[in-house]
Amino acid sequence: MQTQFAGKEFFIGTDVGGTKIAVGLVDAHGNILALDRQGTDTSNPTATLDGIAVAVASFIKKNAIDPNKIHALGFGIPGLVDAASGLGIASVNLGWKNIPVRKELESRLGIPCVIDNDVRAGALGEYRFGAAKGKQHLVYINIGTGMSAVILENGRFVLGKHGVAGEIGHAVFEPGGRQCKCGGNGCLEAIVSGPGIADRATMKIKAGQTSILSSQQISIDQPLSAEMVFAAALKQDPVGLSTIEEVSEFMAQALQVITLAYDPDIIVIGGSVFLESPILYRLTIRKLQDYANRSWVFGTAFSEDLITLSELGNNAGILGAAALVTS
Amino acid sequence: MQTQFAGKEFFIGTDVGGTKIAVGLVDAHGNILALDRQGTDTSNPTATLDGIAVAVASFIKKNAIDPNKIHALGFGIPGLVDAASGLGIASVNLGWKNIPVRKELESRLGIPCVIDNDVRAGALGEYRFGAAKGKQHLVYINIGTGMSAVILENGRFVLGKHGVAGEIGHAVFEPGGRQCKCGGNGCLEAIVSGPGIADRATMKIKAGQTSILSSQQISIDQPLSAEMVFAAALKQDPVGLSTIEEVSEFMAQALQVITLAYDPDIIVIGGSVFLESPILYRLTIRKLQDYANRSWVFGTAFSEDLITLSELGNNAGILGAAALVTS
Repeated sequence: MQTQFAGKEFFIGTDVGGTKIAVGLVDAHGNILALDRQGTDTSNPTATLDGIAVAVASFIKKNAIDPNKIHALGFGIPGLVDAASGLGIASVNLGWKNIPVRKELESRLGIPCVIDNDVRAGALGEYRFGAAKGKQHLVYINIGTGMSAVILENGRFVLGKHGVAGEIGHAVFEPGGRQCKCGGNGCLEAIVSGPGIADRATMKIKAGQTSILSSQQISIDQPLSAEMVFAAALKQDPVGLSTIEEVSEFMAQALQVITLAYDPDIIVIGGSVFLESPILYRLTIRKLQDYANRSWVFGTAFSEDLITLSELGNNAGILGAAALVTS
Repeated sequence: MQTQFAGKEFFIGTDVGGTKIAVGLVDAHGNILALDRQGTDTSNPTATLDGIAVAVASFIKKNAIDPNKIHALGFGIPGLVDAASGLGIASVNLGWKNIPVRKELESRLGIPCVIDNDVRAGALGEYRFGAAKGKQHLVYINIGTGMSAVILENGRFVLGKHGVAGEIGHAVFEPGGRQCKCGGNGCLEAIVSGPGIADRATMKIKAGQTSILSSQQISIDQPLSAEMVFAAALKQDPVGLSTIEEVSEFMAQALQVITLAYDPDIIVIGGSVFLESPILYRLTIRKLQDYANRSWVFGTAFSEDLITLSELGNNAGILGAAALVTS
């Protein structure tokens, strides 16, 4: 079979999410040449693995790619992943625990597979194709439904002794604050994540503060979302504005700690929260600028181009997964 | 000249402080075989450098050490040091700025010299001779008049892009809090350092809280010290106890962030503050244990033997300086 990509360097990245599987063909510059999306069958782990394999196999066939020319397939997967052993340790979104994902996919597809956590893949994507190209020492922060940081040194993950290096999303920043999914209270993730932001605004409304959001039905079935809070802030809503103000204060503290802990070449922020709220991003950077103006120690490490938003945006998943097989 | 240490491996470490210069002869196991102390002449940089050189030269002579057998001398120096260029960038205690310390000492002594910041030297001392022996990935925290963290990986300092990696002492932990020497407000250093602890207790007394410390003259000339606060807490003094309680909360937060940022093999705490206050240390560890019991993420990285006190104690300065020439 003759491939249309013969003689060109290309990579196949698969972004496995709780609702969708996205497969993409990516060139060496990070351009997506072909893209396919399928629903994720999460009824049981075998069905999920079958679904992933079928999605990738049909993508390869449809695009007339010679399987012998694919040296490896990359998969970004939510949850805890042990990349070295190819194990999906735990994923709430996929509902699996200790699944030998790599082995299972390789036996279905007949091609070597590389798997890793999707945020780690995103970090590698920014390093290979995005905002951190050519940077030796990168911190990638993803803020969406959760919050985590990934450290890359010369394209290699810094994992620490137990693989939790960078998990400052689970450090207490607001003692006695909102319960976090990890079991702690007042963790950074419980403050700056989408659900954390929505919850902060909800508390204000429940406490009787005036807001255009009060007219919306807030219930367990229809809770507020971070997007609704951001939209309200754009309309100068006091609850929306004060929520973003408070969250930006914590976010500035977090970014300052990250800067001083690692003194990296660049910090890239990905995930939905900052991409959806330019006000939150601007306020956070303004506070950091103020910290830097006051403290000569922080001022030594901070500069305007230290912190930047993800360049990969909505393609981060596929490009990150593709990046897993580029090195 | 015959040396009494002929055929044995030994190192000479010099701890340069604002008031004293301590020179020690150290064997490969970290035993101090000989020790000398001189006052520091800080009237001007030349006098300081002359004084250091005379102290070391007379130590070598007194102990009948053959200068030809000394491959290098190690110096731990307070303040900002660029070890690679041998420059003393700035030192408040020694009152110097941009002094080519290494070059100046080498020309006076005729022996190769290695200089570094004293806290970095302390970290290396713990790695070579103390609590972190054999640990690949160490965070060393010094809390005394200041607060800083040093990261060692396989015996090499992790410095970051601008040499400030680990300086989380200048991250804001108490927005609007006490002014820090760096210019910031509410920096960790301004909370957990000796002066920070003393100042917190002083504020409580000035606010009218009852304390056995109130009977002592508190003035600019005779301020409270952290030792006095620790002593009061031992007598169940409410200001002493509440000060330590509050500081331990911040200290636990800081150690949690450090653990989650680096996920190191060991964290060693040196400096006077924790060595002088076992209550503060115990309270801090208890809070960390509580965090670990709640959060499975933090619980993954934390264990009872993760955090330990310095083993070198009062000898940290000399052993650290000696460690600079052991590798």
